Amino acid sequence: MSPREDTVLSTMQDVPLTVTRILVHGVLVHGQSQIITWTDEGEPRRRTFAEAGTRAVQLAHALHDDLGVRDDDRVATLMWNNAEHVEAYFAIPSMGAVLHTLNLRLPAEQLVWIVNHAADRVIIVNGSLLPLLAPLLSKMPTVEHVVVSGPGDRSVLEGAHAQVHEYEDLIAGKPTTYDWPELDERQAAAMCYTSGTTGDPKGVVYSHRSIYLHSMQVNMTQSMGLTDQDTSLVVVPQFHVNAWGLPHATFMTGVNLLMPDRFLQPAPLAEMIERERPTHAAAVPTIWQGLLAELTARPRDVSSLTQVTIGGSACPPSLMEAFDKLGMRVCHAWGMTETSPLGTVARPPAHAVGTDEEFAYRLTQGRFPASVEARLTGPGGERLPWDGESAGELEVRGPWIAGAYYNGPDAEPLRPSDKFSEDGWLKTGDVGTISPDGFLTLTDRAKDVIKSGGEWISSVDLENALMSHPDVAEAAVVAVPDDKWGERPLATVVLREGASTDFTALRAFLAEEGKIAKWQLPERWTVIEAVPKTSVGKFDKKVIRQQYAAGDLDITMI
Amino acid sequence: MSPREDTVLSTMQDVPLTVTRILVHGVLVHGQSQIITWTDEGEPRRRTFAEAGTRAVQLAHALHDDLGVRDDDRVATLMWNNAEHVEAYFAIPSMGAVLHTLNLRLPAEQLVWIVNHAADRVIIVNGSLLPLLAPLLSKMPTVEHVVVSGPGDRSVLEGAHAQVHEYEDLIAGKPTTYDWPELDERQAAAMCYTSGTTGDPKGVVYSHRSIYLHSMQVNMTQSMGLTDQDTSLVVVPQFHVNAWGLPHATFMTGVNLLMPDRFLQPAPLAEMIERERPTHAAAVPTIWQGLLAELTARPRDVSSLTQVTIGGSACPPSLMEAFDKLGMRVCHAWGMTETSPLGTVARPPAHAVGTDEEFAYRLTQGRFPASVEARLTGPGGERLPWDGESAGELEVRGPWIAGAYYNGPDAEPLRPSDKFSEDGWLKTGDVGTISPDGFLTLTDRAKDVIKSGGEWISSVDLENALMSHPDVAEAAVVAVPDDKWGERPLATVVLREGASTDFTALRAFLAEEGKIAKWQLPERWTVIEAVPKTSVGKFDKKVIRQQYAAGDLDITMI
Repeated sequence: MSPREDTVLSTMQDVPLTVTRILVHGVLVHGQSQIITWTDEGEPRRRTFAEAGTRAVQLAHALHDDLGVRDDDRVATLMWNNAEHVEAYFAIPSMGAVLHTLNLRLPAEQLVWIVNHAADRVIIVNGSLLPLLAPLLSKMPTVEHVVVSGPGDRSVLEGAHAQVHEYEDLIAGKPTTYDWPELDERQAAAMCYTSGTTGDPKGVVYSHRSIYLHSMQVNMTQSMGLTDQDTSLVVVPQFHVNAWGLPHATFMTGVNLLMPDRFLQPAPLAEMIERERPTHAAAVPTIWQGLLAELTARPRDVSSLTQVTIGGSACPPSLMEAFDKLGMRVCHAWGMTETSPLGTVARPPAHAVGTDEEFAYRLTQGRFPASVEARLTGPGGERLPWDGESAGELEVRGPWIAGAYYNGPDAEPLRPSDKFSEDGWLKTGDVGTISPDGFLTLTDRAKDVIKSGGEWISSVDLENALMSHPDVAEAAVVAVPDDKWGERPLATVVLREGASTDFTALRAFLAEEGKIAKWQLPERWTVIEAVPKTSVGKFDKKVIRQQYAAGDLDITMI
Repeated sequence: MSPREDTVLSTMQDVPLTVTRILVHGVLVHGQSQIITWTDEGEPRRRTFAEAGTRAVQLAHALHDDLGVRDDDRVATLMWNNAEHVEAYFAIPSMGAVLHTLNLRLPAEQLVWIVNHAADRVIIVNGSLLPLLAPLLSKMPTVEHVVVSGPGDRSVLEGAHAQVHEYEDLIAGKPTTYDWPELDERQAAAMCYTSGTTGDPKGVVYSHRSIYLHSMQVNMTQSMGLTDQDTSLVVVPQFHVNAWGLPHATFMTGVNLLMPDRFLQPAPLAEMIERERPTHAAAVPTIWQGLLAELTARPRDVSSLTQVTIGGSACPPSLMEAFDKLGMRVCHAWGMTETSPLGTVARPPAHAVGTDEEFAYRLTQGRFPASVEARLTGPGGERLPWDGESAGELEVRGPWIAGAYYNGPDAEPLRPSDKFSEDGWLKTGDVGTISPDGFLTLTDRAKDVIKSGGEWISSVDLENALMSHPDVAEAAVVAVPDDKWGERPLATVVLREGASTDFTALRAFLAEEGKIAKWQLPERWTVIEAVPKTSVGKFDKKVIRQQYAAGDLDITMI
């Protein structure tokens, strides 16, 4: 949309919001803040923002002058969280190219698919990850250069079609200033592929504008709320949605970064907390489960760490309570690759602080900030109220929310209708409720919800209720076709050692105390040996639905 | 700049940053936060964000449907800080029109000039300000409607050419939803004229984008850093640079607003602090001087108020210390109408917190945030280093910094070369230094600095040094022409009762202890009765320069 013809013109400067600006600011104003990278050499590597900024300039020169990176060429990283990865984060977008972070946990064939889809010209790789990359390189014809950083056996790259360079040799002696190009703020800055459980991975391309605005949000009081007095332990990987925006956000405000590199096991994490005394940490719940066990077995002084941002999946209440006891306050956040990722942060509202309600608010996914609009869509496509009761699919809109997927160089972005509404909102695939004061509670994934007679039944609610029965070790509930209701829930149950099968008792248990509404109670029941899981340990309900469809399950109707 | 032709396109949604979005968010997510307006009726008026938002919708309908406001028509406000003024803040830009806040402290002829220059069609006015407006209305031919809010005698408007409306009558019964137009984020949202000491007032036109980004900045941790647990006492007027952005910023995060309306005297301010228990306040130093005297004379419980943002002019160290003793931590901020106004905020850097350096950092004007780029230009136009020593004129650049002035409807914005550099930066007219870690210390106004032999002498430094002598009550130093050096300082001194004139002793005093470099010592001295002052109490050095030029001063050369 253009301004109107006869308009009163704003007299404001037209200054683009770019990653370059964040870099220049971090170096100039917060030059003494530090990036601390963990090593197994007894001492972490310490580098100031000023030093990392200078090295980012040198990296940009190396990529441009020596490797011929031009325009929006994709430069990929296959790296842990470390200072060099931060340098790549700033050098590549600032020179106008596109940073492509590769998820090192993906299956090999997906990694190959992604590199080819993005047509990456360069891969910067940590030496420790060469055993992963080397066998795949021959299937990545667009990759002309491999730049290796840090320890690891280089010999595995012998015979590769791509030219191999040492990161440190490449940047050594390069000029320490760069005439950064003037960029459009809507230009691509970075990309990240989602590891969907179905279909090919989908690329999300972040713009300079979206990264800049998201960084401001991360630094707002009701978000992560850090200052230059903080040190943030960034466990969430840089290959996973820009490490939740922390590398960019910290260069805006001078927050120190503590980077674990490849040392993500509970013992080194506990040691780095004790020795480097971070005040904040960001990670998925699994990591914290492991850390909690470690700290219980071998107590350490972790008193510096007072704030922990947890996202990726819901933090179990028991884990939250355990961390509260250690003086680490867990703050839930919700987001996804398509949301940059900050969608909500669970800071309890003023009226709940210090009351019994506070914990309940902390268990929600969090509150929407001003830049993320949200709406709930019901089973029939209708808009649902924010009443904390009506569950619908969450749709979001905002300047750092994806409105399409990357479709390859020179192709128009893709907008699949199951992912984006006609008016351009992102369909998150998450089902939940929103309270009148804007707090999101997720109850299910849209693909797992049971659509029964025009109403939705949460598979997660049924599973949680079942798993609270002493006889049940695990339970998965999936939708199966039903002539009368469209879909009905199928309860698959893993029994504890020595427990016997009594579906009628289980059904009665669910109905007790209003746990589950009567019409939501499953009629179809079966006992299974174990719930099938995906590579990252989530329930793989697709497999159960296939087993049911194939008639492989022994169903009891009650 | 357009994106390149063959570019990898960002897949982010293109969502404009608008005031409308802030309004909708504030109502939806922070609907229970409050605007508390002080009255002389025993009880303040309390209105939730949800209620104020509904009334803003009704006001927009009234302006559009009844008063015919269209497109970018200017709607002016001549109002104190109160809930209705907040409603106007949101209604007018959200409907696509331009909010024009009128400074009620301006001389009458400037007010008339400004209304005519902006071609305001509507003025919303507080009843208490009608005695100011009524006599001027006949000189404001573009004003078709006057909307009156709050107590005050309406009869003074009899015979006015403009139609007169009651605010409450106008909005009563209007629809409570509005189909807000899709706006361009670079569109004009609000305007404010600077009250320059020379020449005509200059209009600054804020865009939706600049207000949105500035609001995010206000809510960042290293800025005002408020949350919905705070209540902000907004003493800085809404007619003065958008009350430093607080009405917009608070709707983003749910901070409660405590609005003093016309009760800006020390006694009611002390009373509203004691009764409503704000946690934050924003005002210029003069207000706080008065409040301090009041609290000393009549102590009250002001323990809730722990953070005070002071800007407009420097806070004297003694005042800062006095407030520290009361438990109110003063935080300096610097800005101007042209900077929206947030330029710097003086939050001490991590390394200084808890050390002797901390207070010195708090006395600076503050640190630049990522969105405000700064540079210093020396006497010869050269760039000066950020070494905390080199003093130059401060120039700034950023998305909420003016790059021009308003030149009237349908006219191109004005870019006077003494106000904007060739490459579009704002020349602030302030002279100062920047430390290596990005803290600004202002030392003088560019127009008052003495340009002697290619070097600058700070008039303020000389004045402060002179005023620290026991015989000197006041001192003003101005530049006067000098054949050899171009300019040299003239010291004008007001002696204390009973003190005798000894310029040689004063000069020696300045030279003592390295207070002032030898080449900066004035040769020209005179005793005056009082330093001439402007209407807002600042030294009016223009008058002294004129008196010197006219030969009216009795000069001693030493």
